[in-house]
Amino acid sequence: MKTDIKFKENTFVVKGYGAKDNLLNKLTDHRLSEMDVERPMINDNQVIVEVLYSGVCHSDIHQVNDDWKNTRYPCVPGHEIIGKIAKVGNKVTKFSEGDLVGVGCMIDSCQTCKPCQDNEEQFCAGPHGPTMTYNGYFNDPASDFNTFGGYSSHVVSSEEFLLRIPEKLDIKKAAPILCAGITTYLPLKQWNIKQGDKVAIVGIGGLGHMAVQLAKAMGAEVTAITTQEAKRKEALELGADHVLISENDEEMKKNAMNFNYILITIPYAFDVNPYVKLLAIRGSLVTVGLLGEYKEPLNNMEVAKLARQVGGSVIGGVKDTQEVLDFCAEHNIHPEVQMMKIEDINDAFEKIKKEKVRFRYVIDMKA
Amino acid sequence: MKTDIKFKENTFVVKGYGAKDNLLNKLTDHRLSEMDVERPMINDNQVIVEVLYSGVCHSDIHQVNDDWKNTRYPCVPGHEIIGKIAKVGNKVTKFSEGDLVGVGCMIDSCQTCKPCQDNEEQFCAGPHGPTMTYNGYFNDPASDFNTFGGYSSHVVSSEEFLLRIPEKLDIKKAAPILCAGITTYLPLKQWNIKQGDKVAIVGIGGLGHMAVQLAKAMGAEVTAITTQEAKRKEALELGADHVLISENDEEMKKNAMNFNYILITIPYAFDVNPYVKLLAIRGSLVTVGLLGEYKEPLNNMEVAKLARQVGGSVIGGVKDTQEVLDFCAEHNIHPEVQMMKIEDINDAFEKIKKEKVRFRYVIDMKA
Repeated sequence: MKTDIKFKENTFVVKGYGAKDNLLNKLTDHRLSEMDVERPMINDNQVIVEVLYSGVCHSDIHQVNDDWKNTRYPCVPGHEIIGKIAKVGNKVTKFSEGDLVGVGCMIDSCQTCKPCQDNEEQFCAGPHGPTMTYNGYFNDPASDFNTFGGYSSHVVSSEEFLLRIPEKLDIKKAAPILCAGITTYLPLKQWNIKQGDKVAIVGIGGLGHMAVQLAKAMGAEVTAITTQEAKRKEALELGADHVLISENDEEMKKNAMNFNYILITIPYAFDVNPYVKLLAIRGSLVTVGLLGEYKEPLNNMEVAKLARQVGGSVIGGVKDTQEVLDFCAEHNIHPEVQMMKIEDINDAFEKIKKEKVRFRYVIDMKA
Repeated sequence: MKTDIKFKENTFVVKGYGAKDNLLNKLTDHRLSEMDVERPMINDNQVIVEVLYSGVCHSDIHQVNDDWKNTRYPCVPGHEIIGKIAKVGNKVTKFSEGDLVGVGCMIDSCQTCKPCQDNEEQFCAGPHGPTMTYNGYFNDPASDFNTFGGYSSHVVSSEEFLLRIPEKLDIKKAAPILCAGITTYLPLKQWNIKQGDKVAIVGIGGLGHMAVQLAKAMGAEVTAITTQEAKRKEALELGADHVLISENDEEMKKNAMNFNYILITIPYAFDVNPYVKLLAIRGSLVTVGLLGEYKEPLNNMEVAKLARQVGGSVIGGVKDTQEVLDFCAEHNIHPEVQMMKIEDINDAFEKIKKEKVRFRYVIDMKA
C-alpha cells in the first residue's frame, strides 16, 4: 500500500482498507475495500506511526459487521499494530521519529480519573471513556472524526499509549500481543497463576494460543480445551500439558471439578454451564471472547454449590500491555502468525470465520 | 409436641412434622403433618439433641416441594436448630448432657478430605459428601435411613458438627444464624468487607435481613435493594444506609457501577443482568438464594467490560458457622424472628411464600 501522507489544513489523508457504510456493507457481504483515510492533524502530545505490521483480530469482523450495534462508518479496523514513528507532536518527550513502537486497542484516555491513575485506562471514567484505536473518537463523541485503526499506512496515538517493543521480540510476529496477548494475560495475572495451578484454556485460536503459552510460562499445568481433534497436536506443540475435546461427554465428565481457573476465548454465543462444571471448589472462569449474551441461562446451582465464579474481561491498560510484551520477550513467547497482504483481507476474514487460521493473520504492510 | 423418646433395638422414635411422600404431598398441596420419626441409634461420636427452637428456612419449602428433584420422603425439614443435649455417645468428649448447642445444615462429613481439613465441610469430597441435617443419609446413600431435621422433638448430630451458643445471644432468636447467618456471612467474609466498601443486599427477607446487619457490622456502607416500598423503613431500622427499590428504573440507572459487592438473596429464578450493571469496576456479586437457573442468559458484555464477577455460595463450614455465631454475639446482631407453634407450620409456609414474614419464623418447640 502507498505510504504517502497528504497533509491538508487540519487533517491528513493516507491510504487504508475499510468498510464504507453499513448498508453498502450488507449488500456486499461486509467486504472491505481500499479507501482514503482522513485523520485530524496530530496535537502536541500525539504521534503519527507508520504501520509495519497489523494483526487481524476476530473483533475486527464483529465491528465491521456492526454485531455490537455501535459501529461508526467508515470503519477501518486494526488494533494490533507494530510500526515506526513518522512524526511527533511538539510536546512529545519520550519517543522520537524512527522509534519502533506498538499501538494496541486504545490511543488515548482522560489520564486523570481513578482507573487511569490505577493504570487501567480501559475503564477510563472520564467524560468519554478511553479513545479506542478504531471506532472511537478524539475526546468528543459529537466530533465527526471517527478513529481509524491499523489497516492503513499510518495511525495516530497519544504518546502515553505507545508501547515499547523489546529487542528480543520478532517484530513480524509481535503485533497480536497487543490485543490477543494482553486480553489473555490480564485475567491470568489477576488470578496470580502459579506453579501447580490447574488452568484450562477454552478455544485454541488467536487468543487461546497465546493464553496456553502465557499460562504455561507462569508455571500452570495447562489443559487446552477445543472442539477440534485437529488442534490436539498444535495445542501440545504450544505447550499444553493436556488436551480435552469439549464434545467428548465422557472426557468432560472425567474433568469435572478439575480446574482452578478456566479462560474461555470462544468468540460467539455459547453455553457456559458445561465449563462451570469443570471448575474446582472456589474455581473461577473468565470469558474474554464473547461480548454478548451466553446461549443459555447460567445455572446457579452449579455455581453456588462449590462457590465458583463466572467473570469476564476485556483488553488491559498500557502498563499491563507493556508488561505482557516484556513477559513474552523474557519467556520467548511469540504469537503463531500467518503473514498476509492487505489486499487479501476479505479472504482472511472468511478463513477466520471458518476457524482456518493458525493462529493469527498479520498484515505485512510492506508486502 | 411430645418429647418422649421410644428406644427400639437399633433405632429410636420421636415425634415430628413432615411430608410423608411426594404423591400425597401433591394431592394435599404439600402440607406437613405430625408423624413418628424413626432415627438410627446414635453411634459413639454422636449426640441426641432435644430441640428447643427451630428456624423455618425458605429452602425447607423447596425441599418439601421437591423443587430440586432430590427429595427423599418422608421429609422432616429444619436445619436452624437450638437445643439441649439429651444423650451423648460413648466417645463424645467435648460436650455433655444438658449443654446448650446449635445444629446447622450439616451433621457429619468424612472429616479427612482436603475440604474438611480446610474447615469447608460443605464441600466434603468424601465418598458421600457431607451429611445434611435433613434429606441426607448417614454415611451411605444406599441406607434406608434418611436424615430428619429440626421439625421434631429431637435431632442427631456428630459431636464435631455441634455449635456452641455464646451467652450473649438470645436463644429464642439465634436459630436462623445457623443457616441464614452463615449463608450470608461466608461470602461477605470471603470478600473481606471493610470500612468504606459499598455493599448492596438484594432481597430483604430471612437471609437478606441478616446480611444487612452483618455487612453493616463489618463497616460497609450498606444499600438494601428490595421490590417492596413497604420494606424501606424496616431495612433502615436494620441498619441499611440506603434503600433502593429495584422496580424504579431511574433509581437503578443512577446506581449503575455503584457497588463493590452485591449479595443477592432472591430465592426464585430472576434476571441477574440488572444487578450486574450496579457493580463497580472489578465488582463482584454472589447469589445465595437461588439454587437453579437464572431467568435470562447472563450478558457477558456487561460482565467483561468492567471485569466483573458473578458467583454463588451456599452455607458454610463448622468453623465459619461458629465464627458467625460469635460475631453476632460480639456485635449484638440477632435475627428478627416471629415465634410460632409447630402446629402452625403449614400456615407459616404460606406466609413465607407470600413474603409476609418479618423476617424469620422460629418454631418454639415448647409452645
